[in-house]
Amino acid sequence: MGSAGPLIDVALIHYPVVNRTGEIIGSAITNLDLHDIARAGCTYGVDTYWVVTPDAQQRELAGQIVGHWTQGYGGGVNPDRKQALSRIRICATLDEVLQGVGDKWQQKATVFATCARPASNTVGYADVQSRLRGGEPMLLLFGTAWGLAPEVMAAVDGTLPPIRGCGEFNHLSVRSAVSIILDRLLGDR
Amino acid sequence: MGSAGPLIDVALIHYPVVNRTGEIIGSAITNLDLHDIARAGCTYGVDTYWVVTPDAQQRELAGQIVGHWTQGYGGGVNPDRKQALSRIRICATLDEVLQGVGDKWQQKATVFATCARPASNTVGYADVQSRLRGGEPMLLLFGTAWGLAPEVMAAVDGTLPPIRGCGEFNHLSVRSAVSIILDRLLGDR
Repeated sequence: MGSAGPLIDVALIHYPVVNRTGEIIGSAITNLDLHDIARAGCTYGVDTYWVVTPDAQQRELAGQIVGHWTQGYGGGVNPDRKQALSRIRICATLDEVLQGVGDKWQQKATVFATCARPASNTVGYADVQSRLRGGEPMLLLFGTAWGLAPEVMAAVDGTLPPIRGCGEFNHLSVRSAVSIILDRLLGDR
Repeated sequence: MGSAGPLIDVALIHYPVVNRTGEIIGSAITNLDLHDIARAGCTYGVDTYWVVTPDAQQRELAGQIVGHWTQGYGGGVNPDRKQALSRIRICATLDEVLQGVGDKWQQKATVFATCARPASNTVGYADVQSRLRGGEPMLLLFGTAWGLAPEVMAAVDGTLPPIRGCGEFNHLSVRSAVSIILDRLLGDR
């Protein structure tokens, strides 16, 4: 890892994702996805936490929540939360995220999807960790609802393995999945 | 690990915990602590997820939420959530948890606290993982608010190390902390 730390961003996608029957839907932004993932991102050195929804009212709502903690009353009483939520950027599309990441780092980031189901383009955690430590810029995509739409999965550079504990149950919350994956890639054990 | 899997329980403590200034308080139960930690517990083979509060109205509320998913409408539309929340037991005190764990496994479980700050009785993740695999029954305690009260920390058999990413920020949500610790101890990497 370079002296400046890893180059890693996280994006939480609210559209296009799938519902339980596999239909393409847009999901609603939730307050705790903003907080928990920002706090995990801040712990593990994520540079920007992108929150993606094409719904303008949802973006406005998310902006008000984030503003309460970064510029409003919340940040005064809880500076740790201000520090965490300051890394959130709200945007409309994944294309905007890719553009923003490229502009920021002046190079294309490798884009990894995450999925609770096995994918054909899986890249292991040790491999991704090693590449991160070598300075490769990365963007991790997380889907809300029942996960990223097939069109997103098909366009990425690779997919991280599903998180398995013991047994067949793999219905973690996206908040848990982000936390575990950041710890696997960036944790100081 | 025995053929029956690890013997591990998790308890989420709402009293006694501390607030930001170190005073002993009781915190409120939150819906998403029930869901996220139950889902992570189910993923990693946690046997019982104990939710502890001395407030009878809070226990009643938590019971109604859990009942919606285990016996009510929610479990019908989302059987995975029913499976996860079925491992929740709500009780009033940590003593009740210790009694329940002892009765269930017919032996005393080793009790580990978790804390965002270093403790004098720290036991490393690799050591705890090895003991779990050897069949030692364990109970992990997690504090809400700003963490477990000193009287709880003083009474446990050991404390797991704080979760560190990079840098000094260590303000993970309890939902993230549980998920990461279960993955460190029980994840199939």
